[in-house]
Amino acid sequence: MRCEVLAVGTELLLGQVVDTNSAWIGERLALAGIDCLFQGKVGDNHGRMVSALRDALDRAEAIIVCGGLGPTQDDITREAIAEVMSVELVRDENVAEAIRAMFGSRGRDMAENNLRQADVPVGATVIPQVMGTAPGLICPVGDRVIYAVPGVPHEMREMVERAVVPDLRSRGGVAATIVSRTLRTWGTAESTLAEMIADRVDAQTNPTIAFLASGIEGLKVRLTAKAPTPVEAMELLAAEEGVLRERLGPLVFGVDEETMEDAVAVQLVGRGLTLAVAESVTGGLVASRLVSVAGASNWFKGGVVAYDSEVKFKVLGVRRGPVISEECASEMAQRVADLLGADVGLAVTGVAGPDEREGQPVGTVILGMYVDGAPEAARVRLTGDRNQLRQFATISLLNMLRLRLLERGGDA
Amino acid sequence: MRCEVLAVGTELLLGQVVDTNSAWIGERLALAGIDCLFQGKVGDNHGRMVSALRDALDRAEAIIVCGGLGPTQDDITREAIAEVMSVELVRDENVAEAIRAMFGSRGRDMAENNLRQADVPVGATVIPQVMGTAPGLICPVGDRVIYAVPGVPHEMREMVERAVVPDLRSRGGVAATIVSRTLRTWGTAESTLAEMIADRVDAQTNPTIAFLASGIEGLKVRLTAKAPTPVEAMELLAAEEGVLRERLGPLVFGVDEETMEDAVAVQLVGRGLTLAVAESVTGGLVASRLVSVAGASNWFKGGVVAYDSEVKFKVLGVRRGPVISEECASEMAQRVADLLGADVGLAVTGVAGPDEREGQPVGTVILGMYVDGAPEAARVRLTGDRNQLRQFATISLLNMLRLRLLERGGDA
Repeated sequence: MRCEVLAVGTELLLGQVVDTNSAWIGERLALAGIDCLFQGKVGDNHGRMVSALRDALDRAEAIIVCGGLGPTQDDITREAIAEVMSVELVRDENVAEAIRAMFGSRGRDMAENNLRQADVPVGATVIPQVMGTAPGLICPVGDRVIYAVPGVPHEMREMVERAVVPDLRSRGGVAATIVSRTLRTWGTAESTLAEMIADRVDAQTNPTIAFLASGIEGLKVRLTAKAPTPVEAMELLAAEEGVLRERLGPLVFGVDEETMEDAVAVQLVGRGLTLAVAESVTGGLVASRLVSVAGASNWFKGGVVAYDSEVKFKVLGVRRGPVISEECASEMAQRVADLLGADVGLAVTGVAGPDEREGQPVGTVILGMYVDGAPEAARVRLTGDRNQLRQFATISLLNMLRLRLLERGGDA
Repeated sequence: MRCEVLAVGTELLLGQVVDTNSAWIGERLALAGIDCLFQGKVGDNHGRMVSALRDALDRAEAIIVCGGLGPTQDDITREAIAEVMSVELVRDENVAEAIRAMFGSRGRDMAENNLRQADVPVGATVIPQVMGTAPGLICPVGDRVIYAVPGVPHEMREMVERAVVPDLRSRGGVAATIVSRTLRTWGTAESTLAEMIADRVDAQTNPTIAFLASGIEGLKVRLTAKAPTPVEAMELLAAEEGVLRERLGPLVFGVDEETMEDAVAVQLVGRGLTLAVAESVTGGLVASRLVSVAGASNWFKGGVVAYDSEVKFKVLGVRRGPVISEECASEMAQRVADLLGADVGLAVTGVAGPDEREGQPVGTVILGMYVDGAPEAARVRLTGDRNQLRQFATISLLNMLRLRLLERGGDA
């Protein structure tokens, strides 16, 4: 079963809006076991839309068209599909009534052109709208099919999940359920990670295993299982996840949408510990990631952004000396914990460039930590531009604390 | 002159990476007066790439292909183009030498497959690489042309600007120059902004005027001028910019890529002032935006993230009382300036949710400022989720300081 995606809208071609819909649909199709070998973007032009649809139908059994279903005169997806189907558009009175009712319930007058959204090619099936005003369409063309969905991302997603993917799967005779889970890792190169689980990847059939490099968010290992029922698919995932976690150990910091700061929060909350941070090179980035965790006020006291060296000496009370040093970083961690009354202190200092500092090259970063009364520090060498260095330093520091707390034991 | 864009990479179809390159190229083509009527994405598959290229050449005089120029076996753009041109690939020794030299200068061993990047279809012209290892290609196909550029965005952008757009313009006989400039504004609704310059927008012919809403980065007004020479185009832009700035006054905080923190930095540096910040609800976001400005160490001392109320009282020395208050915000600003030895202090406190606090609803934000010995505060009501509230609070605070310094006068 092959399905192409066609995104409609002149604004997409002009670069005024980046089309993220096709990437999202591509991912859903892959998870559903449906091949997507080509995706296109076309403007709000009748002739070119018709021609793009015909070309796509030559290559694939199904097309998902996103956008051009709104009420205005440049929304012409309905007309283009009707021409490809060689049929007329007729007004669907049920849809028209639903549109009138929606405007009525919001107490708004309805411009007559909104009813264009109730026009349906003869032979097409309506996918009822639940979020916006434009219904979707399932349009048979011989033994092939065109799905039309809105271009507004959240409306599109809801409709693709609810109606399009299930219909595609039943047409394609795909009976299985596909479920995936992503293990998120930090602290090793992709080649090392790959080596650690090479035999599992080589033997992969179900679940399949894929690596995704995600830059400052680390490396992801995605497991995708296929089974007759969701429960069986989840069981397959859980078994393989167990094997991989055994191999990867604490390299895995989270699952799916869990962030490094979420992982740190879990460790702190489980042990009843509070945290304060002293930042130089990262300039507030560590603190701002920590407060993005809901409930941060239960364990995060705050921090000191000691960007100027005098702030390190006068506000934090660090002894005067080189600031790109293990001594400075571990003292900063201890002092900020004491000053803010926190159990645990974190600190980071380093050289983000453009010039070296204290004879240390750009990319030198010193991570400081103060846990259970013991100050410590680690030196790392990072690469990237100014902003990447700060991002890498931030996640490296959070990961250092996560590993230290895991080692420490106690409830988490 | 019509030019299509073909993005190459199976990861794009699977949704592992969102293709932002074609949108960017679409915008550059529009500015250069070249029509882009179709854009496509295809996987790393020889047959499908060849067929996508042939289809595109049927519709357009030029194609820009992004990606698939790297050293690995799945980088096959060179081979696909050679087949469409009906020619062989030959190794270009100059390119090979440049690749060897690049590895040598970084002290790295070079795997032999890197030299695949020196393979060039017979008859094609090399676009020398300046950032990565993969050169670009200009490949004539009859009276049409295929450009191949890398998929890495910053390498692609540099090459499209330097070599592709100029070549396209000369082939297309496009004699006019198109130049655009964006005025960035903060502090008013789009409808108000539109009203302030409605007559200019109505009368627009050259330059044209467009509004772009950019969320947390404010509203942009883009001017695009067309003229026989760059100098004449710049003159047209400058004249219209003068009229619009007269109308919009201090709503305009920057031009093109200038950020709010850049604007604040210019005001501070011009007056020889230093800055410190005390943050509660924003949790370090204000500081981290400020240190992203190159040279921040000349005017930014640092800050205190007073997330926990006790940090406000004990570290900053703010008098005990309600923390969601004008008194607290202005005291925080004054105290942080005193504590860190800065001329100017900024502070922000508020309620990011999920629950109200001190009887104040979610979205309540108090901005504090301390300039020339005078503490002051302003209360704003913002909307959005937790993260958006913090972002809006941050830019609102920076904008408040920018306006205060403009008012204050003195050199900037």
